[in-house]
Amino acid sequence: MSLTVVGSLAFDAVKTPSGSRDRMLGGAATHFALAASFFDEVRPVGPVGDDFGPEELAILQTRGTITDDVEHVAGGKTFFWAGEYHDNLNTRTTLRTDLNVFEHFEPKLSPAAQDCDVLFLANIQPELQLNVREQCENARFVAMDSMNLWIDIAHDALVRTVKAVDCLILNDEELEQLTGAPTTVKAAEELLGWGLKAVVAKTGKYGAGLFTEDGYFFIPAYPLHEVVDPTGAGDTFAGGFVGYVAAQADAALDHQLFCEAMAYGTALASFNVEEFGTERVARLTGGEIAERVGELQGMTRFEIEALSLRG
Amino acid sequence: MSLTVVGSLAFDAVKTPSGSRDRMLGGAATHFALAASFFDEVRPVGPVGDDFGPEELAILQTRGTITDDVEHVAGGKTFFWAGEYHDNLNTRTTLRTDLNVFEHFEPKLSPAAQDCDVLFLANIQPELQLNVREQCENARFVAMDSMNLWIDIAHDALVRTVKAVDCLILNDEELEQLTGAPTTVKAAEELLGWGLKAVVAKTGKYGAGLFTEDGYFFIPAYPLHEVVDPTGAGDTFAGGFVGYVAAQADAALDHQLFCEAMAYGTALASFNVEEFGTERVARLTGGEIAERVGELQGMTRFEIEALSLRG
Repeated sequence: MSLTVVGSLAFDAVKTPSGSRDRMLGGAATHFALAASFFDEVRPVGPVGDDFGPEELAILQTRGTITDDVEHVAGGKTFFWAGEYHDNLNTRTTLRTDLNVFEHFEPKLSPAAQDCDVLFLANIQPELQLNVREQCENARFVAMDSMNLWIDIAHDALVRTVKAVDCLILNDEELEQLTGAPTTVKAAEELLGWGLKAVVAKTGKYGAGLFTEDGYFFIPAYPLHEVVDPTGAGDTFAGGFVGYVAAQADAALDHQLFCEAMAYGTALASFNVEEFGTERVARLTGGEIAERVGELQGMTRFEIEALSLRG
Repeated sequence: MSLTVVGSLAFDAVKTPSGSRDRMLGGAATHFALAASFFDEVRPVGPVGDDFGPEELAILQTRGTITDDVEHVAGGKTFFWAGEYHDNLNTRTTLRTDLNVFEHFEPKLSPAAQDCDVLFLANIQPELQLNVREQCENARFVAMDSMNLWIDIAHDALVRTVKAVDCLILNDEELEQLTGAPTTVKAAEELLGWGLKAVVAKTGKYGAGLFTEDGYFFIPAYPLHEVVDPTGAGDTFAGGFVGYVAAQADAALDHQLFCEAMAYGTALASFNVEEFGTERVARLTGGEIAERVGELQGMTRFEIEALSLRG
């Protein structure tokens, strides 16, 4: 079995209240792969430039990730993003975005990448996502991310792409924006009507909600004393979530499976934000993940005592 | 057993995307009492004016609430608040605040109100809260609310008051503001160090977190298709939470009890926002509450499958 992810491989410069990094490995596909590699063999697809060296490739290859589909664009430079987080990490300012080799990216998947069991379309142009989705006809589960930019400037293409996948993972406000619905619940209902099996509403530091035909599920973010760097948290969540589904190759794609996947995604994301960039997840262990998933279970369970109410 | 609540009794004018009301019964003590009356005999303490008639008193007396400590200020007018909600209910503008009889409110509790088993100090001046707390020496559980205004202009008095109660129920950002901590987790730790048994961090439409010496618990808000009017949601939550603790007179004031109370508070608050003001909770039934608490339990449970992680 294998898991293909298409998205950015990047260098990030980040400043947060906890410190800063001038240049660190980043990108949606990178964060996704580092998380998903705990669950399955991952194949990231994306372009890099001459500045992407053996050191970066080695991090990407953590836990057996196969980098054959990382396209080296000779003479090019890797996608670069610089940003600063303010206000207790609630807002961030993009200081610089150099698309570089990403600007003319046209995903070409090797036969092995096309033959994936599970596919994740990280946040890129919806037309490209749809193109990739169509290259992977045999995938039994396809999930995707997107962002407000594409809702604004490529709404129809985004809708077509969403209708071609099984699971959409977006921020709650983006779900509302995409559908024009006044609440996340109504947005999710509309989206399930488009044929999705699962809609995941990320709510940042509060956690994430899951909507399927069989109901609703919510899991809070793991409570942390300090969030050092939120960059990549969403992609790391997706890596844990989609990776878990990939690992359970014999399980039905049902509400129960997705609830469990939510717990793994949440655990992975919580480790990601504890340090800058890929630093924490690169050296994470399976035991640490299992422990945190167990803690999350304990933090959300409650018993109902027999109680006779008045009136 | 009985439950005393000190706070505002008011008339509200509210405009939301779903509609408007020019004048409806409101106030923190009102919303709290309507919720808590499912669990225990409630005694609201607060002032009203000549405009507070038998109809309002009748609503307040729902499910046996005793209004002996509602102080009628002859010649006065009841506290009046007018506000409008915007932007999918995420922000609200206060259009008018007429304190009226509330301006010179000095809580005078009857012996019966002082002899309460459980006490809730709704959001009023911290000095008054502390005064009331000291009048109820025998209360086995005292909880309180507050707001950013008091953190700004009466910080020291608020700290003294918090140190004299068992449980603080505030928005997550207010907890951070009160303590100066950068995260809610750190804020809660600081507050537990002040001697609190429980710290509840309300996160609006996302739900609420609980911190005790024994750990962390989070419960999501019940997912609603439409939120008609959020006014009073926090006080209704408090009424369900504190009411549940009051109803379990023989239970230890421990983490488990507070987790269960969180579920009842959440269920009550979700009904409150389904209609304007007190309309929904006034005619709510115990069966409806029990059903929603059960649903919340199902929406938060997940199993952990044995899974061997890679790497």
